[in-house]
Formats: sequence, structure tokens, C-alpha cells
Amino acid sequence: MKRYNLAVIGVGAVGREILRCLRQRNFPIGNLKVFARTSRDIQVDKEVFKVETITPESFQGIDIALFAGTEGEKGAGLQWAEAAVNSGAVVVDNGADFRLREDVPLIVPEVNREKISEHKGIIANPNCTTIQMVVSLSQIYKRFGLEQIILTSFQAVSGAGRTACKVLWEETKRIVEENKDLDYLSINKKIKGYQSEVFPSQIVFNVICQIGSFKEDDFTTEEIKTVKETHKIFDDDSIKITSTCVRVPVFTSHSEAIYFRTRKKVSLEEIKEALKESEGVVYEEGPQKFFSPVDCEGKDGVFVSRLRKDPFNENSFWVWSVSDNLRKGAALNAVQIAESLVSLL
Amino acid sequence: MKRYNLAVIGVGAVGREILRCLRQRNFPIGNLKVFARTSRDIQVDKEVFKVETITPESFQGIDIALFAGTEGEKGAGLQWAEAAVNSGAVVVDNGADFRLREDVPLIVPEVNREKISEHKGIIANPNCTTIQMVVSLSQIYKRFGLEQIILTSFQAVSGAGRTACKVLWEETKRIVEENKDLDYLSINKKIKGYQSEVFPSQIVFNVICQIGSFKEDDFTTEEIKTVKETHKIFDDDSIKITSTCVRVPVFTSHSEAIYFRTRKKVSLEEIKEALKESEGVVYEEGPQKFFSPVDCEGKDGVFVSRLRKDPFNENSFWVWSVSDNLRKGAALNAVQIAESLVSLL
Repeated sequence: MKRYNLAVIGVGAVGREILRCLRQRNFPIGNLKVFARTSRDIQVDKEVFKVETITPESFQGIDIALFAGTEGEKGAGLQWAEAAVNSGAVVVDNGADFRLREDVPLIVPEVNREKISEHKGIIANPNCTTIQMVVSLSQIYKRFGLEQIILTSFQAVSGAGRTACKVLWEETKRIVEENKDLDYLSINKKIKGYQSEVFPSQIVFNVICQIGSFKEDDFTTEEIKTVKETHKIFDDDSIKITSTCVRVPVFTSHSEAIYFRTRKKVSLEEIKEALKESEGVVYEEGPQKFFSPVDCEGKDGVFVSRLRKDPFNENSFWVWSVSDNLRKGAALNAVQIAESLVSLL
Repeated sequence: MKRYNLAVIGVGAVGREILRCLRQRNFPIGNLKVFARTSRDIQVDKEVFKVETITPESFQGIDIALFAGTEGEKGAGLQWAEAAVNSGAVVVDNGADFRLREDVPLIVPEVNREKISEHKGIIANPNCTTIQMVVSLSQIYKRFGLEQIILTSFQAVSGAGRTACKVLWEETKRIVEENKDLDYLSINKKIKGYQSEVFPSQIVFNVICQIGSFKEDDFTTEEIKTVKETHKIFDDDSIKITSTCVRVPVFTSHSEAIYFRTRKKVSLEEIKEALKESEGVVYEEGPQKFFSPVDCEGKDGVFVSRLRKDPFNENSFWVWSVSDNLRKGAALNAVQIAESLVSLL
């Protein structure tokens, strides 16, 4: 079996999860290098990885360079991808910098793995919220078309990076500490005079209707990604997509309430059939059984449940989709791209 | 000034909030009685209320009986409303039992206070999720009509009663206790082998896509309420309404991502104008300023922000609506009904 020399760039929430996925899936690794801005040792699942400072020479002999994407700011991909490509590596970038560039395929293997071969050195990994939605809807789209998607997301803090996880945990401990002698009717759930270092307000016992910054038509960058990236992945910008993206006090796994209307006339049974036959989807017919974030953390699937037909509108349905945002939403998808890539090499 | 003899039935989360609202709004009370299944003293905002055991004679001399609605089970309204009406009281019931009965007006004063005079002894208070949505959309509906509403809710645990608040608090303390020596990357966010006494799974660091029980077409009772109650309040069952209702780890204040399409052609500016002139709505034009549950707890308004026009669909918009589910969603609305009622007496 041929083995490949890999570089993982970035050791935040996603970088660590990439290392975990590579090990769990027994990726055929020759030499594995881990790079970040500063050198140190990190431990993932009891294995210690030596992190080296990234330099222009880091990519010599590397076959595939997996960029974790930076937390909150742009940079690693833009700064180093060209050096990696010039050294002969194929870059898989989880950052947002290259996703909409015409010469960069934007890949979710279950949906459009055939586009991988069009790469010119760089392949982009979509945003977590988009990946989960397109996996949920891909088979439905292929069979019946999609006229409209209306998405409301419930997004975990780990999507905002490791510091955001720390913030939720510190806020939680602080409220417990400050209220430990009070009963549950008297506790102060709002932290007085507090300014979060990550979010616009406290996230514990709260939800925040802003992910990213505000752009055109007052939609956020996150909301705009769900439109533009989905159009690119399905290679169809006729789908009317709109979303509201919301941060919730969950550590890991995004949830999505997805309302969609197909182009073709379709029955509830045909949608069920499509979901059962969707690659990457774990579908539960329910209604009693449905999925929640704590059940999906650390798992690989996109978990779809609570399918319902809108009684008032033809060909219109709801699904509830939950998936680990660090795995299928980021690291796992990147590793799956690498797996598809080596099958072509 | 005429004063009225009031009875408050139930002293859970909503019953206590009714007592608070009556005091804060200086309702013209003559005699105030508080009833529940068992007698005891309770304290609300430092005032002690004597709770008496409810009996068929409890309503003698009472002008208005405010039923808080029971937590999780039906009963108080069905069991005692007839006795109250026979004693000459007008019943305002926050429970679900009477809401859809033809001879019972379902009232949100800002929307349809003119229907109060049609009562035959009983007036119903709608479900919290519905109240907040119809207040948000009422002025828009009156000016431009509504063809479609697609709602995704983020509902606080207090909507499930006091025990549900206790459950969220106990779960939070338990995870902090069990993980206090671990750093935020290593904590176990899922409580092992745990069965909640209120929810289908743990609610801390989680979201749960079920509120109520599953009924027709696999929609939940909560989701069905948002359709049927809204049709009754607007007196218009031609509006195509559908919803996904989700429980989030927030103590108080529901949030709603509401997508709607008007019947008439309308501009973004006209929707802004309607929101600014909506009774009961606090509208923030944003986008930088928007509302979150911890900011709205204990406040009386329905807080609307993040208005956006769907670029792909005519006359279609999003709003983000947040309101204290115990106040406008329940107790305050009931007290406002009582206020409108005495203005007619």
C-alpha cells in the first residue's frame, strides 16, 4: 500500500480533530508533520505530536497539506498555500479564503467528489454549517431538485475555536460559583458587567443571533456562506437559499432546522427513501427518536430526523439535522477529501 | 377608582409572575386570593402571599380569576373554571384547555383586544410561542397580509415549568462539579447514564427538538399550537404557517427566527415602518444591535431585531424576536387581558 507524507497546519480545535481523524481512519501516512506559528508538543488521544514552526521550507516532500483554518482571523491558507503548492503538495484548506475562487473546487465528498480532479493545487473544505446541510439534502436534490431552502441553525461554540469553548466553560463555572448558595429560582443568569472575549455577549444560558460580521442586506458572513457555498457545491445558483445562523450554548455539534421545497412533485415516502439512501446520512424515521448535539459529538455521520411534510405547501418539508461540527463539519470532511485524493493519485 | 377582587390559581413559574405583574402594574385590586392544590405561604419579591387550598367555594365574590395553567399536565382550568364562572367571575386561563373552543376568545390585547367583549365567562391566553410571534407580526399582517410564516423557535426551559428550571440548574452544577479539575478541552459534556425528570435528554449544553408530544403529521403539540392559535387570533386560517419548536438551555425568554411572506407587495422600508409602529414591539434597526434572551428577561416587550429581506423571494423577510416567555408569553398577557376587561366592565 502506498503511503503519503502529510502536513497538518494549525493545532486548534479543528487541527487536533484532523490528527484524531487521520489516526481513527488509518490514513496511509508515510511521514506526518504538524506545523503552527510556534513550536511545542501537543497531546491528542494520548499521542504526543511535535509541533514545528511553519516556514517556507516546511512543505518539502509533503504530498498533502491539510490546513485547519485559523480561528477568527484569516491567514494560514493565504500565507502558506502557495509555498505548499510550489513544493508539490496538494493543499486541502478548511479556511474560508479559497472557497469561492473559480479555480478551487469546493468539496463535500458525498456530494461532489467528482470535482476533486479539477483542482490546480488547492481544494477547499466548505463551512461547517454548509457541509451538514448539503449532505442532508444532497440525495433529495439529485432526485427531485430544490427550489427553496430556509435554514435556521443552532451552532456550537467550538465552531468559533478553542477560546470560545473556554469562554463557555468559564462563564458556566462563574455562574455556578456566584450562585451556589441560591436556589434555582433566585440565581442571576446574567453575568453583570461582563464582556466576552469572543462573543458579543455572554453565551451561557443565552443564544446569540450573530455568527461572523454583518455584510450585504444585513446578513452575516456565516449566513452568506450557507447561500454561496451551497450554490457552488450543487453547481446550481437557482436554488433560493436564505438562513438565520444562531450561536447556542453547546460545545460541539451544530443543529439545523431545514425547511425545503423540491422542484419536482414528491411524496413524503419518496423523501424518506432518499434520506435512507443518502451517503453520509444517518436517518431516523421517528418521530419519537430524534437526534441532539450531545449524542452526535465525536461521531462521523450527519444525523437527520424529524422529517415532516408541510401540510399547507406542496413539495415542502422540514428536517432536523445534527452533526459534529469539528468532524463532518471540518476535520473529517478534510480527511475524506484527502482519502478521495489519494484514490485518484 | 373601582377595585376588583382577584383570584390567582397556581403558584408555579407563571402564577408567581402573575402576582409580580399585578403589583408592578398597580392593578386596581380590592381583595386578592391565591389558590393552589395545597395551602402554604410563598414569597414573591419580598411580599408573602398566603396560598389557600382551592375548593368550589373559592370563587365567591371574585371578579376575575386568573388561572396560571398547570405545568405539564392539564387540569386546573378544566376542573375549576366552571365553578368560577358560576360564581360570577370572569376566567382568564393560561392553560391550553379552552384556547380553541369556539365560545372562548383567544386574546393578545395588542392584536385582537376587541374580541374580549365576546366572552361567555372564559377568556383564553395563548401559548407563549404564539403570543410573541403574533405581536411581532400583527401590524405587518394588518397592513400587508400574510401568506406564509415559517417559524423556528429557541425556547427557554421555564416554559416547561419550575421543575424544568431546577433540572437545568442541577445539570449545570453537576457537570461543573464532575469536571472541575479538567480543562475545557477534556470535560465530559454529556452526563453518563442520566435520565432527566422533565426532558427527553439532558438540556445543559444541548438542544432538544421536541416540545410537547407528537401528533398529526409528526408535528409536536407545541408546533401545532403555533399554527392553530395564530389562525384563531388573526381570525384567518388562510395563512400558511409551519414551525419547528426547539428547547434550548436558557432559563427565561424565548427566541424566534421568523420567516414570513406578505400578501401585498411591500418594501423593506414599509416593514420597518410597520415594526416601529407596532404596539408592544421594541424594534431595533441594527444590524449591530440585536436582542438576546438574557437581555430581555423581566422586561415587558416583544423585542424584534435583525430584519432582513430575502434577496431571492419577493415580499419575504426574516425577523429575530425575543421575549420573556413568563411575562408577555404568559403572566403579563393574562394581566393585560384583565386590564382590558376592567376597562369594559
